[in-house]
Amino acid sequence: MDGIIREGDLLLLLAPGGHTYLLPAEAREFHTHRDAVDLGAFLGRPWGSRILGRKGLPFYALRPTLYDHLMKVRRATQIIYPKEIGLILLKLDVRPGKTILECGTGSGALTLALAAAVGPEGRVITYEKEARFRKVARENLARAGLLERVIFREGVREDFGEKEADALFLDVREPWELLPAAWKALKGGAPFGALVPTVNQVSRLLEALEGLPFVALEVQEILERFYKVNPERLRPEDRMVAHTGYLIFARKVQER
Amino acid sequence: MDGIIREGDLLLLLAPGGHTYLLPAEAREFHTHRDAVDLGAFLGRPWGSRILGRKGLPFYALRPTLYDHLMKVRRATQIIYPKEIGLILLKLDVRPGKTILECGTGSGALTLALAAAVGPEGRVITYEKEARFRKVARENLARAGLLERVIFREGVREDFGEKEADALFLDVREPWELLPAAWKALKGGAPFGALVPTVNQVSRLLEALEGLPFVALEVQEILERFYKVNPERLRPEDRMVAHTGYLIFARKVQER
Amino acid sequence: MDGIIREGDLLLLLAPGGHTYLLPAEAREFHTHRDAVDLGAFLGRPWGSRILGRKGLPFYALRPTLYDHLMKVRRATQIIYPKEIGLILLKLDVRPGKTILECGTGSGALTLALAAAVGPEGRVITYEKEARFRKVARENLARAGLLERVIFREGVREDFGEKEADALFLDVREPWELLPAAWKALKGGAPFGALVPTVNQVSRLLEALEGLPFVALEVQEILERFYKVNPERLRPEDRMVAHTGYLIFARKVQER
Amino acid sequence: MDGIIREGDLLLLLAPGGHTYLLPAEAREFHTHRDAVDLGAFLGRPWGSRILGRKGLPFYALRPTLYDHLMKVRRATQIIYPKEIGLILLKLDVRPGKTILECGTGSGALTLALAAAVGPEGRVITYEKEARFRKVARENLARAGLLERVIFREGVREDFGEKEADALFLDVREPWELLPAAWKALKGGAPFGALVPTVNQVSRLLEALEGLPFVALEVQEILERFYKVNPERLRPEDRMVAHTGYLIFARKVQER
Repeated sequence: MDGIIREGDLLLLLAPGGHTYLLPAEAREFHTHRDAVDLGAFLGRPWGSRILGRKGLPFYALRPTLYDHLMKVRRATQIIYPKEIGLILLKLDVRPGKTILECGTGSGALTLALAAAVGPEGRVITYEKEARFRKVARENLARAGLLERVIFREGVREDFGEKEADALFLDVREPWELLPAAWKALKGGAPFGALVPTVNQVSRLLEALEGLPFVALEVQEILERFYKVNPERLRPEDRMVAHTGYLIFARKVQER
Repeated sequence: MDGIIREGDLLLLLAPGGHTYLLPAEAREFHTHRDAVDLGAFLGRPWGSRILGRKGLPFYALRPTLYDHLMKVRRATQIIYPKEIGLILLKLDVRPGKTILECGTGSGALTLALAAAVGPEGRVITYEKEARFRKVARENLARAGLLERVIFREGVREDFGEKEADALFLDVREPWELLPAAWKALKGGAPFGALVPTVNQVSRLLEALEGLPFVALEVQEILERFYKVNPERLRPEDRMVAHTGYLIFARKVQER
Repeated sequence: MDGIIREGDLLLLLAPGGHTYLLPAEAREFHTHRDAVDLGAFLGRPWGSRILGRKGLPFYALRPTLYDHLMKVRRATQIIYPKEIGLILLKLDVRPGKTILECGTGSGALTLALAAAVGPEGRVITYEKEARFRKVARENLARAGLLERVIFREGVREDFGEKEADALFLDVREPWELLPAAWKALKGGAPFGALVPTVNQVSRLLEALEGLPFVALEVQEILERFYKVNPERLRPEDRMVAHTGYLIFARKVQER
Repeated sequence: MDGIIREGDLLLLLAPGGHTYLLPAEAREFHTHRDAVDLGAFLGRPWGSRILGRKGLPFYALRPTLYDHLMKVRRATQIIYPKEIGLILLKLDVRPGKTILECGTGSGALTLALAAAVGPEGRVITYEKEARFRKVARENLARAGLLERVIFREGVREDFGEKEADALFLDVREPWELLPAAWKALKGGAPFGALVPTVNQVSRLLEALEGLPFVALEVQEILERFYKVNPERLRPEDRMVAHTGYLIFARKVQER
């Protein structure tokens, strides 16, 4: 952590044309469609260094941020994106030292962000019934150095097996099925969140939330629009993501 | 932290009709336009408890989350909102133990979120030239119990007086003026961010970023659309916020 | 139509500060909160003329466009807005000489646009069961000089009483109830459209459309974002309309 | 126009899977990637008829609407889309009998819509300096049967050569250059419109409009979000168009 790139450090390589690659620093040549670079030349140099490729084009080595990890997770499922994750962290009040439950893990993108935010004293308990998704999520977490903060469990029926969770997030097909268990697992007043892709699921989840002691119900969607980075011809990109999912939030109360 | 509401605890009171109030737990009557409640009745009861008002309407006491604090900051200036703050935390890789620079502080909404995310081992150094804004920001931080993680400074000219910042965010009218100082203050490869309200400022800041060793430039805006919480008549709210600002991100490199 | 403002002409008065008023040209003083103007001074002068108010502020007389009429309709109901109307006219292929059915009329905003677009040879047949809405719609159409192109009917049960409509639009609470009648009223291949405010209605209408010989089903929503008109500080307005309704389009076919 | 498909009629073929094709009705087999259909089987049958392909999948013949023509114009340039065209028609008050000026023609998509809306008594005068674009636009107009309402001109310098235009629209790279000529060509009070892709152009055009007798300046953008047509799993499409251009509108006045 003295600001120097060491062998084996994970680096985000920014290549000519803007493409990025998440890979270990080591003495080997790396090829993109525009040029090739000697990765070994970064070793012993400070983060943010520039190395010119064979054709003279610039490559940069950046220390990967959490955002970079999120964008580079190996995907076995549809993932939750940073535009939603950022808001989820705030709504669920995910902070150092907290205990957060998540179901299902999927590829572990949200798990990664939760694990980073709870810090070394916190923990994330994540439930996923599919073994192959648990495997992918573990790999994604290990690569980001966050695996030890995460407890994996196989699935939920009646119960999460926890009682004093600081927050709980559901990313499953039928979140309404898990609501009574979610209520039991949460601390009094604690935040609940869920993401579902269709409006039919939103309606169904709202109905279920209204039938249990949950208050402060909220439904929202987040749209992110990128701009072309050209100061003299500034304009949005031609296309954008129109939909990832609807976010539903609520708070557990003792009675309704 | 045993889950019981004690005298002096800050609570988020959820009143009939959905309005919320951030206030200390104490033995007094609190009036809203719909009903009145004896706040003292919450003392000694668990978080998430319900107390009926004089007219029988339900009031709930919730432990305020960071999100609640952000929505309730005393405002001396236009603030940055959670939809942007969530993404800023991810893009700047704000995590437990880090050192983050921010300029200017304004009312301290982003400061609050940065302070929560860096945890007790991290620190936020925030610059604000207006004494009255620093005062308001201090009060907002103190109320959230986060003041001790934040160092206030009066302003920046040539230099931030820091050299190894993990990330830096500018929320000032002319961020391009501070770019050389920002570059000097950041670690190699570290993330830089800014928010500006007008497209003219975006163009100007992009030009300045292109003139210094910054890469991975990105411009985006975030739109948040809330829905009416009615499962049988689900539809977006009639109106929404159309604009708060444009977010610009980049990474410091050693040379360009 | 020689370009001169005559007594009794309907004019759109553009007042200082940007407010507009739809009123007849006549010799009287008109007061706004900023200034007062002698409307009579416009008589005999060309359209687009400027008259200074008592305090020296400029007032302009513009010939009202269809858009101006749409924004100034007297409202007895929620109206359909230009951002949707423009697309409806294109999707329904509303052109000079055509016969268009509409149900319900409401305040007649869409009726106005349909009547303008079909020209003097076309006609609009509009159905509205509430007498008070028919009255308001008639007044709005009369003011725009379009009443004679519109046939009013009281309501629909089994049948629209028409067989060869070029297009048909439904703006009613339960459009699925009228679908069999709509199918009967349309020419082969002709476009069908509807607007509903909730997603539950969208689902229900799609189900009904899928059960009849309709093809090319489409659902969409239109968002319109206005900018503050300041070339040096260009930025969107702070707030915008988040929702008016979902537009559903389809085409009648002979069998499915 | 008796509702029967005749040889040589232009038809919109709706093929299995939702793809559409604009082609003449004639006795030949037409192949898509899913099936093949005998187009001749449509001759003599009513519009909206269904013919089964060789594999038994349904094909439908629809009379092309203006919207269909707009989506199927041969493109030599970036075109203006229906979401913008609909609003342009309303803002410019394009109605039967009017005279509308447009510069530049491009591929003629907006020209098509203007020509349809002004009816047989109206006319559209369109300016385009590139001969190859004029050629493409002519073909697009001819196919839609609207060529005779349109007058083509080669370009504009100081003057449009017209004095009493009901409305004028600019779709050129530097619309501010043509503003004095635009002002001269318009009737008093008449609407002016323009579309530009970048914010820098918006700023520049607003500055120019503020320097001439134009009032009621307005800047806006239109976003269109489509939904997947599935009543039980209703949700927006994954991606959408994020940007086509900014619309600027104003009104000519006699003096400012």
